[in-house]
Amino acid sequence: MADSRVPTVAWADGAVELLDQTLLPEREAVRRCTTVDELIEAIRVLAVRGAPAIGVAGAYGVALAARWHAGAPDEFAAAVARLRAARPTAVNLARMVDEVAAAAADPDKALATAHAVRDREVAASHAMGERGADLLAELCGVRPLRVMTICNTGALAAVERGTALAVIETLHERGHLAEAIPLETRPLLQGARLTTWELARMGAPHRLIVDSAAASLLARGLADAVVVGADRIAANGDTANKIGTLGLALGARHGGVPFVVVAPETTVDRATPTGSAIEIEDRGADEVTAFRGAPVAAAGTEAMNPAFDVTPATLIDAIVTDERVIRVAKGETPARWRNPSDGAVHL
Amino acid sequence: MADSRVPTVAWADGAVELLDQTLLPEREAVRRCTTVDELIEAIRVLAVRGAPAIGVAGAYGVALAARWHAGAPDEFAAAVARLRAARPTAVNLARMVDEVAAAAADPDKALATAHAVRDREVAASHAMGERGADLLAELCGVRPLRVMTICNTGALAAVERGTALAVIETLHERGHLAEAIPLETRPLLQGARLTTWELARMGAPHRLIVDSAAASLLARGLADAVVVGADRIAANGDTANKIGTLGLALGARHGGVPFVVVAPETTVDRATPTGSAIEIEDRGADEVTAFRGAPVAAAGTEAMNPAFDVTPATLIDAIVTDERVIRVAKGETPARWRNPSDGAVHL
Repeated sequence: MADSRVPTVAWADGAVELLDQTLLPEREAVRRCTTVDELIEAIRVLAVRGAPAIGVAGAYGVALAARWHAGAPDEFAAAVARLRAARPTAVNLARMVDEVAAAAADPDKALATAHAVRDREVAASHAMGERGADLLAELCGVRPLRVMTICNTGALAAVERGTALAVIETLHERGHLAEAIPLETRPLLQGARLTTWELARMGAPHRLIVDSAAASLLARGLADAVVVGADRIAANGDTANKIGTLGLALGARHGGVPFVVVAPETTVDRATPTGSAIEIEDRGADEVTAFRGAPVAAAGTEAMNPAFDVTPATLIDAIVTDERVIRVAKGETPARWRNPSDGAVHL
Repeated sequence: MADSRVPTVAWADGAVELLDQTLLPEREAVRRCTTVDELIEAIRVLAVRGAPAIGVAGAYGVALAARWHAGAPDEFAAAVARLRAARPTAVNLARMVDEVAAAAADPDKALATAHAVRDREVAASHAMGERGADLLAELCGVRPLRVMTICNTGALAAVERGTALAVIETLHERGHLAEAIPLETRPLLQGARLTTWELARMGAPHRLIVDSAAASLLARGLADAVVVGADRIAANGDTANKIGTLGLALGARHGGVPFVVVAPETTVDRATPTGSAIEIEDRGADEVTAFRGAPVAAAGTEAMNPAFDVTPATLIDAIVTDERVIRVAKGETPARWRNPSDGAVHL
């Protein structure tokens, strides 16, 4: 998809260029960030979002910082620290920022490292798509599947192809996608605005639903599998992801439908033992009390607006990464996993 | 609330007058229906909604039909049949229409019967509020409670006070409401638009959430109880209600929080043995792909839009009606219930 179109994240002429996702699906426009603070603002307003894409944007942000603050290590370090903290929940941002910052404060080396980070994420998306599609064939049978998903986890979230949506795209390419069922994903409607836009471009059949319809449709047997992305996966397999993922996992379990998390290894955080240690960002009332700028609640209404929730490992059947399938339902965790190729247990 | 304001449903000068709920919270305007077909259209576009309020509107609709078709029994019967079928899921509409139609085709008698139906629903709301508040005190302790609810089940849904929201109002009057947590209730946002409006008028503290945040907040211990209304309750206790209720029930069970259904006896349908026999209205794609006229999804997006779901009795702790508390968690059902006052088991 990224070939002939505006790429999700790119380096161009000394700046980070983003496809401004706040304007989709109505308009495809480039948002050009020439400073670290412009990039931080773009991350904050969700012009770029999705854990891997934010990570790649952050990696390029370090390259920007290296250009602006060459020869001023304190300023460089301060810029890197601000960038690292632009959003708290996804581990990818901090990790990829650190990777580039550690590699070089030299502008050219920083940029080369950022490009390498991007290339690795793109390769990871292809691997996740293939591995996830293989797993669904194993769990559900080799037949056209109806696959439910939340938020946007496609090329817009991970530079190319994506995580959970890469699995759906791979199934579609194999002729094994009966229908994708994206949840609209309130409050910012990434499913309605972004995932339908990506599915339409793939030519993949799909029907949109409101988030709260998922449990009922799963109970009625209208989906064969649920695939979701992740913002942070704890060592025990507990998974932080877009708000609504826990409810979707409960619906899948109630409906007897496999629930699979798809994310790159960079999303696994072994330093976080369980989900209870994951910080949950609250994004404030405005996103809930207004709908694309128009107020929907009585004037002065307060709100709670957690951006993420934590799905316990007990509700997850498997975690698919670019390197492995972690069969959580069989007792495996990211930190304790048996490699089927050599039988070794990794602790 | 209805005293000095526009009432939810009223008979005035030979017409049915409704507070047009499609315009709330921005504007309080009366929608005047002088014919049965105008009333059916008002029901269809949700100018009046909520199972008991639709029932009362339907009752007055029969009084309208009796005026227009006095001396023309076939036309009267046809108008009654159209009215009865204006929406399929709630049992109250058909039941209250039938009650008034059976009482009299004579205009004055029909109107007197419709008034009696309204008065009975108002009295039922007061009884549900008291009984439900008593039950929550028993289940959660006598202390200020944080109570989550979905859709709008207040005076706007049941002429006065309501069903589940009547319980919250009663707790607030008793000084035992710490906070109401209304779900916004996509796609039509009755929670955001209507319930916050009613809670603000009560002076009850509240914070709005998106539907998909409920499971996570329940898992994090941020609510003490969940109360919901019902559109139809089967003989075994399975309950059809606004889409999202099943997910909320799964979240409550996962979080270890009591889940209580509040509805008048007129919502109990002994002729429906289980939830699987309840027809679920699908309201079409437009409500999902656009919001208040503005598109939110890629052009041409299709959708599934079930308006209701069915929560199995196994996920319900108790059903509170205007006449009794059915302790579903203890094996009682609407059809098999032990009267605590005399110990008699009703089959």
